[in-house]
Amino acid sequence: MKLQGTHQRSITRTADGRGARIMDQRDLPWAISWVELRSAADAERAIREMWTRGAPLIGATAAYGLAMALAEDGSDEALDRAYRFLLASRPTAVNLRWALDKLVETVRPLPAAERAAPAFARADAICDEDVELNRAIGAHGLELFRELHARHPDRPLNILTHCNAGWLATVDYGTATAPMYLAHDAGIPVHVWVDETRPRNQGALLTAFELAGHGVPHTVITDNAGGHLMMTGQVDAVIVGTDRVTANGDVCNKIGTYLKALAAKDNGVPFYVALPYTTFDADTATGADVPIEERSGDEVTHVSGEGGRIRVTASTAANPAFDVTPARLVTGYLTERGLVEKV
Amino acid sequence: MKLQGTHQRSITRTADGRGARIMDQRDLPWAISWVELRSAADAERAIREMWTRGAPLIGATAAYGLAMALAEDGSDEALDRAYRFLLASRPTAVNLRWALDKLVETVRPLPAAERAAPAFARADAICDEDVELNRAIGAHGLELFRELHARHPDRPLNILTHCNAGWLATVDYGTATAPMYLAHDAGIPVHVWVDETRPRNQGALLTAFELAGHGVPHTVITDNAGGHLMMTGQVDAVIVGTDRVTANGDVCNKIGTYLKALAAKDNGVPFYVALPYTTFDADTATGADVPIEERSGDEVTHVSGEGGRIRVTASTAANPAFDVTPARLVTGYLTERGLVEKV
Repeated sequence: MKLQGTHQRSITRTADGRGARIMDQRDLPWAISWVELRSAADAERAIREMWTRGAPLIGATAAYGLAMALAEDGSDEALDRAYRFLLASRPTAVNLRWALDKLVETVRPLPAAERAAPAFARADAICDEDVELNRAIGAHGLELFRELHARHPDRPLNILTHCNAGWLATVDYGTATAPMYLAHDAGIPVHVWVDETRPRNQGALLTAFELAGHGVPHTVITDNAGGHLMMTGQVDAVIVGTDRVTANGDVCNKIGTYLKALAAKDNGVPFYVALPYTTFDADTATGADVPIEERSGDEVTHVSGEGGRIRVTASTAANPAFDVTPARLVTGYLTERGLVEKV
Repeated sequence: MKLQGTHQRSITRTADGRGARIMDQRDLPWAISWVELRSAADAERAIREMWTRGAPLIGATAAYGLAMALAEDGSDEALDRAYRFLLASRPTAVNLRWALDKLVETVRPLPAAERAAPAFARADAICDEDVELNRAIGAHGLELFRELHARHPDRPLNILTHCNAGWLATVDYGTATAPMYLAHDAGIPVHVWVDETRPRNQGALLTAFELAGHGVPHTVITDNAGGHLMMTGQVDAVIVGTDRVTANGDVCNKIGTYLKALAAKDNGVPFYVALPYTTFDADTATGADVPIEERSGDEVTHVSGEGGRIRVTASTAANPAFDVTPARLVTGYLTERGLVEKV
């Protein structure tokens, strides 16, 4: 997508080729700060503290982190230690394990001293593949959006999304956002309802920032508002990303996704999940088998924004970070191979 | 309910009997500030700017406002002007009109010079009636909670609520909260999941404050979390208040209520609406006929709390304030006359 007028990726190698350059997304949209990761510890911290987030981008960041570890010490022991260290940075994302496994596959047969360069090359390839995947997801989504818009050609196509499954969560285009960018560029009048996505406000902060950067009309709403908008005919489709789709088609995604899926079903609004095939987790039977990350209650009791950080309740809070949307509520899975109606 | 150790009402006449004493709820829970309303303009402003809110308390505040107008000028013209002025302060609450109508009924037959005292007396009576209604709602709710707890006597009774249908929204006890207070006082181990209720955070700020004041265990959650908690068996019942129930049983309440009702239905969790009979609006056929207040987007883009007011998105926002929960999702209406399963 475009940012400040130029097409940019969310992660690249540093100019010297030995690190990775990402955005510290915690300052967005108020400040655009690019940072350089120089070690596996940098990468782990960036993932754990959510400087960077989103399943594909976490995978790419971890891949570069593992390559950086091997540049310091290419031994089997160091490889295994860095693998475990990076894998533990976030508990839910399946892409994290997938990306790390790809790197291990690549370097395991090689002598310890010759592992770093192929590891970096494999991490680059993971990024390039992600860009192609998202472009393909966007191309299939564009056709879907074209059909949806043709039903009401006299008004904008209203899409609702939750959290950020965008450019900032991938290497480029995003998953859920790729069809928005491609449809906008193709002249379809897309308007996006952006769920603010408490507690971390990824929608209000990140998705809105991205859409603004690329020039896509959008309106931020509270997470409470989507049901009313669907009931009153103001939403043509819901499209979200996912951290993991289990073997039966259940969708693990940001807390609150399930509520939007229920409202979509209740109002006959199609509910799409955009994902690369790597996010299908055939080894996990159902959503009930996915461990749900419980994050600090401070993320609920305090809110950050332009102007600082304030406390919004005098009580304590619980903070489950993800929920499971049952497969029966999903209209289709939008993948790089096309729209899959049933997993 | 108890506040700072003593049982208190949320609205009383001032010591001199010529005004009304309410809490400016906008400072809660950080500061407890009681204010005196001295004119219809004070009352209108307190309602419109949400110093005070909640259908029954809005009705009581408007009633005192009309009495104060009549103390200044008891003419028919002044009565009609003050009626229209106060009625326009908030568009959704049916209790506002009901309370004003009661006062007009009382004073219309009287000479202009003799209207003020009976108007104040009628406003007092409206308050006393509200307290009795809520106590009765609480008593019926207590029996319901006792039955629900008996199903799992080994663990706390987990209740989820949205927004604030509490002491702060009524004259005492609250509607949705009355069963919580009475059950807690009766020794039932109640624990309340409090939806923060964006954009104005009435749950996180007000309901949590009330429950803390009375000593009821509770945990604040984002509006996104309730679906997950219900799916994982952590909610025994949902109970909310309402601004209006239409002739067919549709429930108009704070934006986001509909999403919780969908999740309750999907998980077999009973969904109760607590209300006095005055909140039933037989003159409105269905929820689709209720005008939904669209409030300023600033309430979404900015968040207030301890530490100030911050901006949480660089984009613009929409802010529908209420939604409609279809009657088919409601397990029962908890009223002063008992539990009504079908309207």
